[in-house]
Amino acid sequence: MAVVVPFESPHPASIERLTRLVAPDMERVNNAILARTGSEVTMIPEVANHLISSGGKRLRPMLTLAMARLSGYAGDGHIKLSAAVEFMHTATLLHDDVVDQSDMRRGKQAARMLWGNEASVLVGDFLLGQAFKMMVEVGSLQALDILSSAAAVIAEGEVMQLGAAKNTATNEDEYLAVIRAKTAELFAAACEVGPVLAGKDKSEIAACRSYGMNLGIAFQLVDDALDYGGKSAKLGKNVGDDFREGKITLPVVLSFRRGSDSERAFWNRTLGKGEVNDGDLDTAMGLMSKHHAIEDTVGRARHYGAIATDALALVPASEIKTALEETVAFCIARAH
Amino acid sequence: MAVVVPFESPHPASIERLTRLVAPDMERVNNAILARTGSEVTMIPEVANHLISSGGKRLRPMLTLAMARLSGYAGDGHIKLSAAVEFMHTATLLHDDVVDQSDMRRGKQAARMLWGNEASVLVGDFLLGQAFKMMVEVGSLQALDILSSAAAVIAEGEVMQLGAAKNTATNEDEYLAVIRAKTAELFAAACEVGPVLAGKDKSEIAACRSYGMNLGIAFQLVDDALDYGGKSAKLGKNVGDDFREGKITLPVVLSFRRGSDSERAFWNRTLGKGEVNDGDLDTAMGLMSKHHAIEDTVGRARHYGAIATDALALVPASEIKTALEETVAFCIARAH
Repeated sequence: MAVVVPFESPHPASIERLTRLVAPDMERVNNAILARTGSEVTMIPEVANHLISSGGKRLRPMLTLAMARLSGYAGDGHIKLSAAVEFMHTATLLHDDVVDQSDMRRGKQAARMLWGNEASVLVGDFLLGQAFKMMVEVGSLQALDILSSAAAVIAEGEVMQLGAAKNTATNEDEYLAVIRAKTAELFAAACEVGPVLAGKDKSEIAACRSYGMNLGIAFQLVDDALDYGGKSAKLGKNVGDDFREGKITLPVVLSFRRGSDSERAFWNRTLGKGEVNDGDLDTAMGLMSKHHAIEDTVGRARHYGAIATDALALVPASEIKTALEETVAFCIARAH
Repeated sequence: MAVVVPFESPHPASIERLTRLVAPDMERVNNAILARTGSEVTMIPEVANHLISSGGKRLRPMLTLAMARLSGYAGDGHIKLSAAVEFMHTATLLHDDVVDQSDMRRGKQAARMLWGNEASVLVGDFLLGQAFKMMVEVGSLQALDILSSAAAVIAEGEVMQLGAAKNTATNEDEYLAVIRAKTAELFAAACEVGPVLAGKDKSEIAACRSYGMNLGIAFQLVDDALDYGGKSAKLGKNVGDDFREGKITLPVVLSFRRGSDSERAFWNRTLGKGEVNDGDLDTAMGLMSKHHAIEDTVGRARHYGAIATDALALVPASEIKTALEETVAFCIARAH
């Protein structure tokens, strides 16, 4: 049930070039990650590494490395900041799985299913603490400000999402405010700290931040589309997870607003009240298809992807710039 | 069922003097706390203020203020660091209540009972993020290092405690390692950042840290004693909570090690396997009385309290020094 959306990017949809260009730095990041999950409390490296070594793409830390390179940064600080970004992301996933009561993460059992909610909460806290320690070691107060502000905004976004859960009246702006905070803010911060370390001027820092913010929005939009039409093995989660959890994502917002009264009654029963019966997921996907909700969600993602690409327009051509452009195409083409 | 332990301190057991001396600064801290729990996401101030305004003693932020004053600090940074310390503490409590599945906190319903585990996890994350933002604003990398390291150590201590739960074979050293990390480290960090801001030399910073660390150990030892003999209204939690949760605290460690085989079988059934019947709490308290486990726990607290007081011995006499000495006496006398 693939979603076919024409995507008119001049760039191949691949992160192969990005991965190759940052590979030497990424090896140092991986070493830092391994060193910092170490603890005499054996449960900590077990839980942390279960998730960290579970084959995530490491897109966020790669962005930190790529932006440092794009900015001509010659120091070492980007390694620890990149590891800190991955730790912040991992902490968020550990806490999210507890909040969402998820069973699976990246095609494996969620940490909370193996070690319990308690360990997931606390190891998340440990990783957040380690992330801040690494940032402090780098010693850039500006980078610290960016990443610590992001940590607060992300948590705020998660609480917003909690408040919006089951509320089928959520509109597109409210949905966007949530995904900006819970997802895009970390992409933005990850991209911003590289040029900050390199001492770039305000407008270049703002360009990198804008690339990250808009890429993050596009990324989350595609994720939310994939939840109603992706392949389980590829995503590492199941089609319909958001539906079963009562999450109000853009495909739902569009279908609800474009639907008839009886369709809205369906959404209110299933997502609003959480009364989900056999066949309801198929009905939901049918309604989304009828109202072009998935295509339009991916269309919105293309819009933000274009802003991300344009944000870097003034940066002179280079292979790393090309890699960042291809990354935008990759994030959107996941929906094919 | 008060525990009577002779306490030979030359200082009155009161925090009245400490409270009075830091009152003007504390008002500024309270304003900072109110300002930083603000969010357009209404659930955040609700959950945060439920706990923050629930009448905790604010001992940790008061210590930060007192140590800044003891060090002759003339700037403003101690206000935000003090608020950050209280936020770190509040975040820990929110996450602890989820981990321990507690119903009550400070004589009120725990936040998780009113807003759910989800909100407690996420608002804790938000407060941690805000704490780091305030630290960054103060701009002292050394203070940032101390507090971010403390955040990682605290989480590590909580995971250690999780691993030690139900393990009746835990010895006193292992128990001490847990309470050093989960409780005393924040007391130590709270005390250390004041002299750091004031630019004091290494030995003075170490003295303040040592005071905080040992006071924190004494504080937790007394807390653990009170759990088997305190008054519910005063503590805001119920006698026997630790027993019902299978927590292995020093009163249990001592009773288990000093007991007979049949007594050890009792501890293994109740705390190890969690099979608690009516009357078991009374039996447990009877065994603790028989083996002087509560008195000896408070005796250990006196030992650490004395180290805390001696840590400040080289500091010239002043009213704030007297207040800090009385605070040690206060923390221990809670067991009366």
